[in-house]
Amino acid sequence: MGFAHLDHHRQIRCGFPEVIYCPGKTTEQIVKIFSNLAEKGNNILATRAEGNVFEALVGTKKFPNIRYEKSAKAIVLEQKKIKPSKSVIPIVTAGTADLPVAAEAKVTAEIMGQRTELICDVGVAGLHRLLGHLPKLQKANVIIVVAGMEGALASVVGGLVSCPVIAVPTSVGYGASFEGLSALLTMLNSCASGVTVVNIDNGFSAGVTASLINKKIEQGNN
Amino acid sequence: MGFAHLDHHRQIRCGFPEVIYCPGKTTEQIVKIFSNLAEKGNNILATRAEGNVFEALVGTKKFPNIRYEKSAKAIVLEQKKIKPSKSVIPIVTAGTADLPVAAEAKVTAEIMGQRTELICDVGVAGLHRLLGHLPKLQKANVIIVVAGMEGALASVVGGLVSCPVIAVPTSVGYGASFEGLSALLTMLNSCASGVTVVNIDNGFSAGVTASLINKKIEQGNN
Amino acid sequence: MGFAHLDHHRQIRCGFPEVIYCPGKTTEQIVKIFSNLAEKGNNILATRAEGNVFEALVGTKKFPNIRYEKSAKAIVLEQKKIKPSKSVIPIVTAGTADLPVAAEAKVTAEIMGQRTELICDVGVAGLHRLLGHLPKLQKANVIIVVAGMEGALASVVGGLVSCPVIAVPTSVGYGASFEGLSALLTMLNSCASGVTVVNIDNGFSAGVTASLINKKIEQGNN
Amino acid sequence: MGFAHLDHHRQIRCGFPEVIYCPGKTTEQIVKIFSNLAEKGNNILATRAEGNVFEALVGTKKFPNIRYEKSAKAIVLEQKKIKPSKSVIPIVTAGTADLPVAAEAKVTAEIMGQRTELICDVGVAGLHRLLGHLPKLQKANVIIVVAGMEGALASVVGGLVSCPVIAVPTSVGYGASFEGLSALLTMLNSCASGVTVVNIDNGFSAGVTASLINKKIEQGNN
Amino acid sequence: MGFAHLDHHRQIRCGFPEVIYCPGKTTEQIVKIFSNLAEKGNNILATRAEGNVFEALVGTKKFPNIRYEKSAKAIVLEQKKIKPSKSVIPIVTAGTADLPVAAEAKVTAEIMGQRTELICDVGVAGLHRLLGHLPKLQKANVIIVVAGMEGALASVVGGLVSCPVIAVPTSVGYGASFEGLSALLTMLNSCASGVTVVNIDNGFSAGVTASLINKKIEQGNN
Amino acid sequence: MGFAHLDHHRQIRCGFPEVIYCPGKTTEQIVKIFSNLAEKGNNILATRAEGNVFEALVGTKKFPNIRYEKSAKAIVLEQKKIKPSKSVIPIVTAGTADLPVAAEAKVTAEIMGQRTELICDVGVAGLHRLLGHLPKLQKANVIIVVAGMEGALASVVGGLVSCPVIAVPTSVGYGASFEGLSALLTMLNSCASGVTVVNIDNGFSAGVTASLINKKIEQGNN
Amino acid sequence: MGFAHLDHHRQIRCGFPEVIYCPGKTTEQIVKIFSNLAEKGNNILATRAEGNVFEALVGTKKFPNIRYEKSAKAIVLEQKKIKPSKSVIPIVTAGTADLPVAAEAKVTAEIMGQRTELICDVGVAGLHRLLGHLPKLQKANVIIVVAGMEGALASVVGGLVSCPVIAVPTSVGYGASFEGLSALLTMLNSCASGVTVVNIDNGFSAGVTASLINKKIEQGNN
Amino acid sequence: MGFAHLDHHRQIRCGFPEVIYCPGKTTEQIVKIFSNLAEKGNNILATRAEGNVFEALVGTKKFPNIRYEKSAKAIVLEQKKIKPSKSVIPIVTAGTADLPVAAEAKVTAEIMGQRTELICDVGVAGLHRLLGHLPKLQKANVIIVVAGMEGALASVVGGLVSCPVIAVPTSVGYGASFEGLSALLTMLNSCASGVTVVNIDNGFSAGVTASLINKKIEQGNN
Repeated sequence: MGFAHLDHHRQIRCGFPEVIYCPGKTTEQIVKIFSNLAEKGNNILATRAEGNVFEALVGTKKFPNIRYEKSAKAIVLEQKKIKPSKSVIPIVTAGTADLPVAAEAKVTAEIMGQRTELICDVGVAGLHRLLGHLPKLQKANVIIVVAGMEGALASVVGGLVSCPVIAVPTSVGYGASFEGLSALLTMLNSCASGVTVVNIDNGFSAGVTASLINKKIEQGNN
Repeated sequence: MGFAHLDHHRQIRCGFPEVIYCPGKTTEQIVKIFSNLAEKGNNILATRAEGNVFEALVGTKKFPNIRYEKSAKAIVLEQKKIKPSKSVIPIVTAGTADLPVAAEAKVTAEIMGQRTELICDVGVAGLHRLLGHLPKLQKANVIIVVAGMEGALASVVGGLVSCPVIAVPTSVGYGASFEGLSALLTMLNSCASGVTVVNIDNGFSAGVTASLINKKIEQGNN
Repeated sequence: MGFAHLDHHRQIRCGFPEVIYCPGKTTEQIVKIFSNLAEKGNNILATRAEGNVFEALVGTKKFPNIRYEKSAKAIVLEQKKIKPSKSVIPIVTAGTADLPVAAEAKVTAEIMGQRTELICDVGVAGLHRLLGHLPKLQKANVIIVVAGMEGALASVVGGLVSCPVIAVPTSVGYGASFEGLSALLTMLNSCASGVTVVNIDNGFSAGVTASLINKKIEQGNN
Repeated sequence: MGFAHLDHHRQIRCGFPEVIYCPGKTTEQIVKIFSNLAEKGNNILATRAEGNVFEALVGTKKFPNIRYEKSAKAIVLEQKKIKPSKSVIPIVTAGTADLPVAAEAKVTAEIMGQRTELICDVGVAGLHRLLGHLPKLQKANVIIVVAGMEGALASVVGGLVSCPVIAVPTSVGYGASFEGLSALLTMLNSCASGVTVVNIDNGFSAGVTASLINKKIEQGNN
Repeated sequence: MGFAHLDHHRQIRCGFPEVIYCPGKTTEQIVKIFSNLAEKGNNILATRAEGNVFEALVGTKKFPNIRYEKSAKAIVLEQKKIKPSKSVIPIVTAGTADLPVAAEAKVTAEIMGQRTELICDVGVAGLHRLLGHLPKLQKANVIIVVAGMEGALASVVGGLVSCPVIAVPTSVGYGASFEGLSALLTMLNSCASGVTVVNIDNGFSAGVTASLINKKIEQGNN
Repeated sequence: MGFAHLDHHRQIRCGFPEVIYCPGKTTEQIVKIFSNLAEKGNNILATRAEGNVFEALVGTKKFPNIRYEKSAKAIVLEQKKIKPSKSVIPIVTAGTADLPVAAEAKVTAEIMGQRTELICDVGVAGLHRLLGHLPKLQKANVIIVVAGMEGALASVVGGLVSCPVIAVPTSVGYGASFEGLSALLTMLNSCASGVTVVNIDNGFSAGVTASLINKKIEQGNN
Repeated sequence: MGFAHLDHHRQIRCGFPEVIYCPGKTTEQIVKIFSNLAEKGNNILATRAEGNVFEALVGTKKFPNIRYEKSAKAIVLEQKKIKPSKSVIPIVTAGTADLPVAAEAKVTAEIMGQRTELICDVGVAGLHRLLGHLPKLQKANVIIVVAGMEGALASVVGGLVSCPVIAVPTSVGYGASFEGLSALLTMLNSCASGVTVVNIDNGFSAGVTASLINKKIEQGNN
Repeated sequence: MGFAHLDHHRQIRCGFPEVIYCPGKTTEQIVKIFSNLAEKGNNILATRAEGNVFEALVGTKKFPNIRYEKSAKAIVLEQKKIKPSKSVIPIVTAGTADLPVAAEAKVTAEIMGQRTELICDVGVAGLHRLLGHLPKLQKANVIIVVAGMEGALASVVGGLVSCPVIAVPTSVGYGASFEGLSALLTMLNSCASGVTVVNIDNGFSAGVTASLINKKIEQGNN
């Protein structure tokens, strides 16, 4: 297509959706790539998509089942049936302003066949709110923690559970949060075991990794 | 003990070893903590330990089975039998100088019951060296990638496999590597799916997380 | 002219075009400089030019052959015949969003008499896409690699070829890409031989340098 | 004295000790300043003092009551009786390696007439250790929290109490802790109310401020 | 409520207002949270609120006493009578441009029952302006200093008084002020005793901490 | 006036103008301060003023002689006769885009009674352009050098003359110029003797300092 | 060999030497790798080698022709005859302290068959020293410029010649040179055409790239 | 000499000393350069010289009048009579630890014929100490201010005098002083008129610039 290679790699993994990362692409380019991928019958996830991209896709009238997850800025086209996971992946946020990043993780995990549960606004300055959700957290196979500002939530959650924790720093905050740098460094320096980190605001990557892990656990080792 | 709390949390997870992070502790403090933990019969891992700490522990004559992993700077005491995993965790390094960090990941994963295999010196400037190991990588449940300088190995490995990749940036390099910052940023910005990152030189954390993931996969979801 | 010196240096090299870098200059200033240079009969390249600058130049009706390369944001006026090079300079990009920077390199190299070929969307997370272009890359005299995010493509290309590689980090990415800093550091720390780096998003500089090298090679040493 | 002004300001506040910050001063200079101040009969605190400075002071045989707080690297001369405070200032540390900074805060607060209690090794990765000390924390007038690495302890403590918290980031950590920068940013971005921050490793400043606050509270407003 | 936990912690301290931090929340979310909190009869402070949020709240016609502090961008609802403090908290600014941050500190302290006095435009380049206010400063229990650019005012004030100083760096400045970083570092490195620092532009946090301290001092120790 | 102190310091030095730095002040505040200062009969310089501020001042009809220096964004009111200096201060710029900063230096020096000469577009990549101005430079008492991007012009000028050079880094550039940081560091590291540096884009400060120096030189030492 | 892959890639390019980068490798590892490579009869270059490594190699008595370039810290073993280039690559340094990096570039280029000439101590603060060498510079095919501190030399040289310039920032300097960061940014922001940059202190990479370019030019395009 | 150009530029200005900056040069190189320059009969200043360099020079027995300024780490050879200035340059330091940098400024200014006076330990946390020296400061033609940590002294001095102030940030401090970065930024952001800045710890450059200014003022304009 000149501006984009379309090949099997575009599907994250066998059985998973095709993914289009929208920033830096023109609406025309996105529509072409989207159409091309859709023809093969796979599910499609377009991330960081502005509303006008969604409208352009709707305008083609080719994708009756397309939907727009506004908070996540994600466009979803489900053409193949997705079989939901047995276990649930908790997605925990420190504050209300972290919701868009959590939503991106959620929509990503779901189109990869994972059941998820959002646990919002449980930042470390109010520990009792978090502790109320402890049973759910302790039975998870993997947890996604989304936090901006000081980003301390990943360490606290990591200390309370025995499964891997995917930490997503967000650019929520101001001043010395330096667009998410503060939360990023906090999470990288976590003393809690089993915490790994993805890029600032990268809910997509957290959703993918958590899905890969949970899928493998549900399949077992064979 | 005044300077350190000793409690069950010190064991990363049930069935796993007790861990002592040595920097900032005096030799006397380490010996006391080590002795205290050893009495309970658990396995012990002391990380970032200088040789004289090991000698002080040997000098107590209390730990006949103690051993020092020199490259990893790790002291290991196995008092409980460890049952090895069925699958092997590949630990891949970009260059020879990344070996100490890889060794820390290896000794950590092993005392957590994981079988590992070191794949050394397969940096991206010589792709054919890496591609020769592809079959091993593609059948793993989880992979640890250790790289300094430009840190690009994590992305390349991540693009070749369908399992989670734990990326460890190292402080190997000079000039604009800024003590590992370059490799850290590279890994955080990876376009490959399923790559998550730990702190610079933190082989221990990579070893723990990979072990948690592999253990859960081998147990399956029940 | 008060605000700008016009002299022979403005031509990058003898036989090459006059160049105007537009940011920070008013449209009026650009039109004056452009007109002044055009009178001497040379080819002209105006970089980082907004559309309204192009329209102002068209509005003067003095430059019937002027054209606007929209993706590159470059204005081109060819008044002298350019003799094309024998060999082709490959311009390789990691993703679709790197295209504008690659386009600036391309238009620059072309007005300096070089034939070029864009190879798009061959980032390291999908190695097979890159490897399919290997023959073209291996017969080049010099290659331009354009990549944002983790910027690892320069190292991988550098390891596959035996000619100099000009690496252009782009500001494509988010979060810890820090406006291109991540890709810049990656490229500076490349382990591959023969990789040198220009400023973030500086397709122009890469185009010039690659042209200088290729021109000298085609002339031979005399 | 040529190299140092000695005046009333050197006493932090009326009734408080004279203070000498040792780094960058020669042993000879410190001995002269110390002697000069001691003659006036006040209490003296010399911070960041190496052992040989202490020995040089002992060698003068002028200060029979002088003592060296090794962990804090502080030299103390009590010549005036100090009346202890009624309430206790808790000094909380995340890990054993934060002890030297906590010790500096402690010796500073004590020579300013404050009773203190060290609560060690209660980092957020093991919340139950911290929660065991909650009653003590909740009845304090002011609390000092000392933490390196991710520095999350200040936020968690701040969320549990209703008094001001003085947060001291330490340079404990490695890699992306960047010599205390990570903990510093975390603490500055704390969501918990009442947390203020001092310089990295600045136990002295935390000790002074906590003492000023507690002294004023014990005096009441009149 | 799905997107926000509402619990007692939302009140900073017993007897204090409920607080809503607006950025990152939609107007709809803010109105819901505000209404919910208002029903319980407490005072409410909404910080960093744009004018349209205030209008939306007015539009509900539920809060006849609501008011908007434009300079501070704060919405205030006083439903419970606030008893003013005996002593006054001085809020000192270096320049006129620091006023919005000072105003946020002022409105916060006032709804927490503190009397305040703004002392404006007394930066260190004109010491006599500051020295004219010395008597007021020297009888305060706690002082808030707000300064951008070089941020030196906190040190100078700290050297003139014997009470704690809460320093607020602001993002006022340009060039090498790096959005407040310069003032932040200056304040963290202050040589004056009793200076602690909050996040850049965080007038709210300074207001809360100063209020906590002054309240405790006025109550005395019992 | 509540929001601003007006006192003699506002005049930089006796015989010099009153100065208002506009950013962060409302138009209303600026008009009030301006009117207040104008009544005393002094000259006034308002820097970084947007066009609407100038229009508001014109709208008051109180200042018939007011003028707006558009490139410098400076408002000037000359009410007292200024006696021009004997010698001329050269203001040298690397590129056309550095003109606004040079213009601010120029208008500042001129209202402080200095004659100036702009020497534009003589960046180090075209040395012959600079060398053509050498005689003027070598007879100056003090020189202002304004440069963005690599900022090397200050070093080159400093090596060619025997008077002090005031270097002004500008935020002109992109990518790794990091908003003027590159030029700032270059100038601070200059090997040439007699080069001192002001803040990024701070033409005002350069104008003031150069004027102070030249004025003193013209007066001689008495 | 377990810790290092030895394969054809180790030779930079066909006909070029094998290279060992010593840091992070033990002396034992280096001796083994060196011996292994030497057996194949190729030339060998070991960079950043401490003196004791050289002595260990001499001690093996296997390499009678081995030599140590002390300033460059390079070990050289020439087993195959090297045919010198027709043209000379100038290696230009700003100051005496940049010599070790220039020496590394020189020894690298020479073992790759290039004739070189060192032009030392011609920093921009003394332009006439540089201009004296202009004829040599203007007839080169490619030039290496090595400079620390403000790093401006690359721009000035780049403006004087019509060939590519490889710029090597060095860590020479102090204070705001930040270990070479200042020179690195200066060079990346160069306005001169044809300047590309390698990592701080990376004389090796500059030597390799300059050799690749010159070799290709001497061969011509066929 | 191969490693260093010796020419007239080495003398800062006509009538001024030759200068050797020692770091990065071997003792042998320094002795050779020193001897070479001394033969011409000029005065010589060698900065940042370790004691063993001085001993090597003494050992040559060629320079009977050579002396070592230990605090400044400067070697001075006066062979030509220096005529002292009429006016005195004050060199003001914030703390005792700033003395070595102030001493370098002092020895530099003195060998350039300036009388100087050190005013030590007058940091802004104790304003009365500074104010006691006000008369001396206010009659100076130019002032050097040397300060580490928060670096606020330059602004305060700049606000009190009407002459240019050369500000020297020092690397004195710890934690968030980041090796002098904090003081550097503070000084660059100074609100006081007439403050310009040199590199961190660069007492030499401050001494040169202050001397150039004072010399010109004493000569007057002719």
